[in-house]
Amino acid sequence: MTTVDGVSLPARLADPDEGISIEELGLAARNHALPLEALRYDVTPVGLHYLLIHYDIPDLDPGKHLLTVDGRVDHQLTLDLAALRARPRVTRRVTLECAGNGRALLTPRPISQPWLSEAVGTAEWTGTPLAPLLREAGLAPDAVDVVFTGADHGVERGVEQDYRRGLPVAEALREEVLLAYEMNGAPLLPQHGAPLRLVVPGWYGMAHVKWLTRITVLDREFDGYQNAVAYRLRSSADDPGVPVTRIEPRALVQPPGFPDFMSRTRVVRAGPRVVEGRAWSGHAPVTAVEATTDGGVTWEAATLDPAGSDADARWAWRRWRYEWPATPGRYVLGARATDASGRTQPVEQPWNRGGFANNLVQRVEVVVTGDA
Amino acid sequence: MTTVDGVSLPARLADPDEGISIEELGLAARNHALPLEALRYDVTPVGLHYLLIHYDIPDLDPGKHLLTVDGRVDHQLTLDLAALRARPRVTRRVTLECAGNGRALLTPRPISQPWLSEAVGTAEWTGTPLAPLLREAGLAPDAVDVVFTGADHGVERGVEQDYRRGLPVAEALREEVLLAYEMNGAPLLPQHGAPLRLVVPGWYGMAHVKWLTRITVLDREFDGYQNAVAYRLRSSADDPGVPVTRIEPRALVQPPGFPDFMSRTRVVRAGPRVVEGRAWSGHAPVTAVEATTDGGVTWEAATLDPAGSDADARWAWRRWRYEWPATPGRYVLGARATDASGRTQPVEQPWNRGGFANNLVQRVEVVVTGDA
Repeated sequence: MTTVDGVSLPARLADPDEGISIEELGLAARNHALPLEALRYDVTPVGLHYLLIHYDIPDLDPGKHLLTVDGRVDHQLTLDLAALRARPRVTRRVTLECAGNGRALLTPRPISQPWLSEAVGTAEWTGTPLAPLLREAGLAPDAVDVVFTGADHGVERGVEQDYRRGLPVAEALREEVLLAYEMNGAPLLPQHGAPLRLVVPGWYGMAHVKWLTRITVLDREFDGYQNAVAYRLRSSADDPGVPVTRIEPRALVQPPGFPDFMSRTRVVRAGPRVVEGRAWSGHAPVTAVEATTDGGVTWEAATLDPAGSDADARWAWRRWRYEWPATPGRYVLGARATDASGRTQPVEQPWNRGGFANNLVQRVEVVVTGDA
Repeated sequence: MTTVDGVSLPARLADPDEGISIEELGLAARNHALPLEALRYDVTPVGLHYLLIHYDIPDLDPGKHLLTVDGRVDHQLTLDLAALRARPRVTRRVTLECAGNGRALLTPRPISQPWLSEAVGTAEWTGTPLAPLLREAGLAPDAVDVVFTGADHGVERGVEQDYRRGLPVAEALREEVLLAYEMNGAPLLPQHGAPLRLVVPGWYGMAHVKWLTRITVLDREFDGYQNAVAYRLRSSADDPGVPVTRIEPRALVQPPGFPDFMSRTRVVRAGPRVVEGRAWSGHAPVTAVEATTDGGVTWEAATLDPAGSDADARWAWRRWRYEWPATPGRYVLGARATDASGRTQPVEQPWNRGGFANNLVQRVEVVVTGDA
């Protein structure tokens, strides 16, 4: 393990009433969220999908890019993009969400990428399934984790590293897992992992390794930084915690009306209105969405759009609608999703030391004005 | 003028040591910056160009979109996209920068979109020149300002409005000004003004009205919110100030080496290194760039790449390079551009109440480590 001194800040929680720091703002400026009005699109247009890049966007030449498969396999493989493109081609619509979504709204606030509620996006990912490639390489019977290495290089808490994540072998062998080289019908953009990335439908974004260079099969659990240190649900700094894995259910409101520039408070004209949004879960299909206009005190059932006829839409968000007879006053809109596993969203914050997998109900401030 | 009560926050400056507020963070999450490593690209890839959207991204149908030209003209015109596309077609490479770039680094900090140094991008804009269209409409001899109305709608400081900006008629008649319908060779993206926007090379971003619906010629100076209230250089709240217009010269360093995740401090291995970046000015061509490694105490001349042979590259940034014999230690890198008008960049902050047109020299923290 290579360490670098003097560049990393200690892990910490914000003091009560401590504003967002310049370092957090620097991450927010780089790693942008979905503007919430973009919930209107079934597939998020290019440039509006959320981004979380741990280090720098690497400068890779697609023509020279190679993927190596090694470790506990019978045959080490090396493939270029042409070889990957010659393999079976699949497109899946998948909603990705950052594991840290909602972090900046927690009290106390873990100091890291300061997401509000919008670290999400849905894309059509095209690539080749991973499982057949692993089978061709010949997985050893003692395989435990499959480690994915990206080309992005940096330092985190003093540890110099390529971004690297281990995935349990049973997850890596799911038929939905893709080695993706296109997004929304075009070659991957630099910031989304060009020329090759992993897509693990249902898992938070940290599993979808970008700028993929190597796949290594281990006969043990991977103990690298991103699995053993970073993405864990811990109650305190000395709690070893449990791994962050699949996406908790979440519904987001597409803010109605029009906004104020600075406060982003919404203005809605009184009258019958339709409030709509999206809902998703990485654990099981969403089965219900409820809407609130009073910040979670009372709830009404919303109507879910039919699930896509395409089985591939299982991993994408679903639209929901709620008919709201808006009368003048101030409101706090929100929604909560429930999935077939029985998981739902809390109104009181869940909390862990890293601010991960937090699916607290969103709060959209709305002023309803009388008809002009 | 329509006003809306109870949704806008008062204009204010941050208290000393006041952290970034949740409202500022909300704007930073929506309106993203250029990740600085993307200075490597001559033309900024889709999705990495900075964005500043006052209200929501409108949902417009290109097939039904109409542009009206009215006011002090002989013939009112209405054009659809097909009519605009049938007119002469021009592509120009233009660097855009937000007028508020650098605001969040000011002391005291004006509370608004909290840009650090990266609110910039360069694109190839394709469209039809504006001037011939205005001449065909027949400008009245008493024309003073040309007002551009966008479809984005919201509230600012209590004033409900479509985004609307006036431009002096002499600027509107410059041959470089475009009605753009493509960016980087593809139809405009929703967040960049689809299906039609204005491009005013050399001016800060507020002049490049997106989602353009109407062009109105006035026989007086436009006194709407964005000209009379928002984008002005004021020394205090009661100073009427002067308008924000063209882009002040700026050079940015493409941060060398690799970053720490949280602090974004750079790690560079000792040895001969090339530091490079980009420089631009909206007033006149950049004539010199100097680099610093000690936060602006001492300066060395950098080498400017030749200007593009294409006259259209006049409005795009230029690459510069500086050979740096990096020895172990801590450094603060920066650069300053000087243009043919004699304008350059300050090391001590310029300051105005809105935090506009601030071209303070960037500070890139670097740790040079010994060879491994």
